[in-house]
Amino acid sequence: MDIKIACGQIEEKPAQPGENTRAILAMIDKAKKAQADILLLPEMAIPGYLLGDLWEQEAFLKDCAAYGEEVVAASQGLVVIFGNIAIDPAKYNQDGHMRKYNAAFVAQNGKLLQGALPYPFISKTSLPNYREFDDMRYFHSTIKLQPEIAPDKTVEDLLQPVEVTIRGEKIKLGVMLCEDGWTDNYNYNVPRILAKHGAQIICNISCSPFTLSKNNKRHRMFGAQAREIGLPIIYCNSVGVQNNGKDVFTFDGCSTIYGTDGTIKTNGTYFAPDFFCADWDTASGAISGENDPEPMKEETAAIYAALEYGAKHFLEATHIKKLTIGLSGGIDSAVAAAFYVHLLGPENVLLINMPSQYNSATTKDIAKNIAQALKTNYAIMPISGSVALTEKELCTTPIHNYGTGSEFKLEVSPFILENIQARDRGARVLAGAAAAFGGAFTCNGNKAETTVGYATFYGDMAGCLALLGDLWKHQVYNLGCYLNDVVYKRQVLPEEVFTIKPSAELSTAQTVGNGGDPIIYPYHDYLFASFIERWHKASPEDILNWYVAGTVEKEIGCEPGLVKQLFPTAEAFIKDLERWWNLFMGLSVAKRIQTPPLIAVSRRAYGYDHREAQLPVYYSRKYLELKEQLLKK
Amino acid sequence: MDIKIACGQIEEKPAQPGENTRAILAMIDKAKKAQADILLLPEMAIPGYLLGDLWEQEAFLKDCAAYGEEVVAASQGLVVIFGNIAIDPAKYNQDGHMRKYNAAFVAQNGKLLQGALPYPFISKTSLPNYREFDDMRYFHSTIKLQPEIAPDKTVEDLLQPVEVTIRGEKIKLGVMLCEDGWTDNYNYNVPRILAKHGAQIICNISCSPFTLSKNNKRHRMFGAQAREIGLPIIYCNSVGVQNNGKDVFTFDGCSTIYGTDGTIKTNGTYFAPDFFCADWDTASGAISGENDPEPMKEETAAIYAALEYGAKHFLEATHIKKLTIGLSGGIDSAVAAAFYVHLLGPENVLLINMPSQYNSATTKDIAKNIAQALKTNYAIMPISGSVALTEKELCTTPIHNYGTGSEFKLEVSPFILENIQARDRGARVLAGAAAAFGGAFTCNGNKAETTVGYATFYGDMAGCLALLGDLWKHQVYNLGCYLNDVVYKRQVLPEEVFTIKPSAELSTAQTVGNGGDPIIYPYHDYLFASFIERWHKASPEDILNWYVAGTVEKEIGCEPGLVKQLFPTAEAFIKDLERWWNLFMGLSVAKRIQTPPLIAVSRRAYGYDHREAQLPVYYSRKYLELKEQLLKK
Repeated sequence: MDIKIACGQIEEKPAQPGENTRAILAMIDKAKKAQADILLLPEMAIPGYLLGDLWEQEAFLKDCAAYGEEVVAASQGLVVIFGNIAIDPAKYNQDGHMRKYNAAFVAQNGKLLQGALPYPFISKTSLPNYREFDDMRYFHSTIKLQPEIAPDKTVEDLLQPVEVTIRGEKIKLGVMLCEDGWTDNYNYNVPRILAKHGAQIICNISCSPFTLSKNNKRHRMFGAQAREIGLPIIYCNSVGVQNNGKDVFTFDGCSTIYGTDGTIKTNGTYFAPDFFCADWDTASGAISGENDPEPMKEETAAIYAALEYGAKHFLEATHIKKLTIGLSGGIDSAVAAAFYVHLLGPENVLLINMPSQYNSATTKDIAKNIAQALKTNYAIMPISGSVALTEKELCTTPIHNYGTGSEFKLEVSPFILENIQARDRGARVLAGAAAAFGGAFTCNGNKAETTVGYATFYGDMAGCLALLGDLWKHQVYNLGCYLNDVVYKRQVLPEEVFTIKPSAELSTAQTVGNGGDPIIYPYHDYLFASFIERWHKASPEDILNWYVAGTVEKEIGCEPGLVKQLFPTAEAFIKDLERWWNLFMGLSVAKRIQTPPLIAVSRRAYGYDHREAQLPVYYSRKYLELKEQLLKK
Repeated sequence: MDIKIACGQIEEKPAQPGENTRAILAMIDKAKKAQADILLLPEMAIPGYLLGDLWEQEAFLKDCAAYGEEVVAASQGLVVIFGNIAIDPAKYNQDGHMRKYNAAFVAQNGKLLQGALPYPFISKTSLPNYREFDDMRYFHSTIKLQPEIAPDKTVEDLLQPVEVTIRGEKIKLGVMLCEDGWTDNYNYNVPRILAKHGAQIICNISCSPFTLSKNNKRHRMFGAQAREIGLPIIYCNSVGVQNNGKDVFTFDGCSTIYGTDGTIKTNGTYFAPDFFCADWDTASGAISGENDPEPMKEETAAIYAALEYGAKHFLEATHIKKLTIGLSGGIDSAVAAAFYVHLLGPENVLLINMPSQYNSATTKDIAKNIAQALKTNYAIMPISGSVALTEKELCTTPIHNYGTGSEFKLEVSPFILENIQARDRGARVLAGAAAAFGGAFTCNGNKAETTVGYATFYGDMAGCLALLGDLWKHQVYNLGCYLNDVVYKRQVLPEEVFTIKPSAELSTAQTVGNGGDPIIYPYHDYLFASFIERWHKASPEDILNWYVAGTVEKEIGCEPGLVKQLFPTAEAFIKDLERWWNLFMGLSVAKRIQTPPLIAVSRRAYGYDHREAQLPVYYSRKYLELKEQLLKK
């Protein structure tokens, strides 16, 4: 028979079950108007997903359950599959909190249907507990339940399709949740088991955050899955912006219908709510969508879309309507300025250039030109007076030693003065100006700086949101071009900002003409990415092995020939590697503990995605042996 | 037969397998000299436990495994039970990283003994995944292994004692790890199962952090366990200081021998490495220690011991030898000053009083008196000049609007000026002075302030470590008394610091004589604690229900009568509750994302222990109904 299946790609608002329920009910109305037989809604459609330990609050959980009943009541004449938290107040999780499940509910004609569990819901089987995911912290599962409720059965026995009756015909729906479809390393291949148990279609409801190139992997994997089990797959994902404190995640939707041949039949849009239908012939398994699939975005367009969607929702949620941005004339703050002026409107952005004697005419001109091009608010607030006052106060105030009765004075070294400048800009000027302008100020640091802590506490590290905190320097440059070429379609960021050598301009040694940043981005961007973004993160041992094999550039993905060009000897290579590794595992961790939230786009973002302890710097025994051999040569 | 069992309570250093192995080998020597038959060492004795995602680095894991072989090789003539990471490089965890287990190894005569698994180790069965624990993020387990290696067996079948032969006699050791003994809410009661399978003694190796009154609970629980299964329990815990970024955890040791009657036969010391033996008669099960049990510390003494041990190790690990402390004359900074002078020596502490026109003679005098009593370094650096300069710069710098061509100036409100003062003290004076003095500066905020964000970004929120960040105001006062009475045995903190009304002294409304803090600590300390420290955290709905029932004081633990005294009407009660709840779920979360690490002592510390997302403030439907009823009256 012909079945019409609808996908309701709602925008999930975390911890707003009332609003989410309204969005769900609106999708149910649409589905009824479209005469759909089945409507899928995303995982955790009612509570939202990234809620931290709010999952421990019973009053909230019970509200979500009550809102779920409203959805069930609205399922007259329609099968509605939706995600919600399922609670069992009579039992406990292993942590002593109320028993709860990340669950899919299947409702029809005002009633919940039951699968193989003694509950009217399907529990997620594979609970992800890596990267930003903490499912096992919060949710019980079929696997944990089995020895308790069915000691004579297996977990597989409990993974059964749900049978619904549509226009007199019985249909078996293989309902599962998100990670259940990512079968790589789990004991139970849920789609395969559901197919074996008679499912005629796989309904995967998800709440899956955006990560660069993840959709590629999903299409490959789910396509292969559909082919292997010979069933169509409906993947219904949410959109929205959710966070776990340090990391702001965007959810990009792109709900997808996969045919039994593994191809994409249709999909939902990116980063916006959507509703679409597919026609499924239960006899042949053939499925077709109304619209052709939307093509995937290339990297920079995808990054821009995620940042735009993420920053918009983050600022709305934190009630920030205006932003103050320190504009140095370098690429990072230039990109931030252009980005936020486009997002908030030029009247809601204040750019401040804060020169000292170390700032070049070049960068000061760039800053002014950008402000003019963006038609926004601009001020110049030199920091020399305040920095001199601070230096004087620190150096001339007598310090009384009540142990010895003697007095002494502090000395301010050039290095200390660099940090005083950075803090003067961040915590004094920007924080004060932002409060007076109304709103907050931004942190413009990129991921390369964050990796090695090339930033000052309470100085350029500070701000309400690190827009570029998950982007490597080359991605920031690309984003700058994208802003010129695609967003503004005119050159708001001048050519020089792309060509000058990056520099902090905090001393005579660090100026635009003279020296510049110690980070050599065309190499270190990629080296640092290997520390954190490879699934099997590279350790110094791995990197030294690549060095010996001559494969560093190939492994990390930078331009060939760079290693030899930058490091004439093994000693030079090792010195550079250890310099940055010591910072990566050392002081930069202390800094990252106090950094603002960032918008996560990569395979691994600092913060809650990549969890860190302050530890001594570790070099493995094999690394130390190899190093010794290389240095002996 | 008579068996001598030794407990090697080592100080675990996270991510220092070489040093830990040396400590283990030293304990093995001691055990051999004491002619012990069996030596227990803590869980994760080689790698340490709180390592964040360093658990994903294969080079580190392989090193730990290699160090484990050194321990095995040293087990001639002795049974050594030690914790280490166990790896299976041929397989993957569910996250695609190398398969690994939180494991106990049993070595004898240079060889590893095997239990019921096809591996020469015992895997932890109950993996804690609440509070600061992320075991399921990193470790595979017997439960996950069972369907893979023994689909025809049950998990229970795989929980078997390890048989060792000591002086010709076969003995069955029930070896398990930490959480396996905390059986409250798990499917498998590991000690009971091991006893059923013939274990003659329970060996629980642990790496269990200090939490106020946790040892009480452990003694109750493990004592009851020993009685129930009729076996002695040897609990070997580590000492040390480990962290997961935001939270610094101390491990208090107190390894314990429980007799079959449930009583404590002997225990190890608190917060220091220890070695002790017990004599066990395998025939009768009787066990006795060499020394009488050490009594437990009362609350403030325990807090002091944890903070002292924690701060000492944290500062050593982060190479901070000197501290600069802003000394306002209030209790928090006074306690911090006395604490750190005792810890680091008066020559390594610099106290700075930073008055503005709002600071009273009272508090300025208190500050000076404390510095004198502590015989340490003291300076007065008024902030008025710098704050006036900032105000002037912000108010007089023209801001050019390149959209309209017009110019305008910012206005600085009194509230903005309060925060400018706080940042001037923190990010300008203290950060600069700390760098010049050599070292870092401290954050002196307490848990009540942290709960509601009563602190300024980059101002009093800033610092390298929040010593008091997990203490309520009344605990800070108690710590002040303890410093006078027990630590210094003289009054270094003067009487007035305990009696003046707490005040931020940032405006005429907030002075010592006039107004003071909006937080009424004798009530709010306890109200706020109910938001976070109760296992079933109180929501506004719970609190309003208590209000209606007249049980607020009893539930939260404050002085009786306070509610009526402070809030004459339901409206006043609700207004106060919502004021603070809005801050607790609102702006304070944004602040906590950027706070420094704290030393965790409570049942729930902010940071990684209590995980938070930035969310809209939530009030449950029942709360709103109840509120409406109360306000109608």
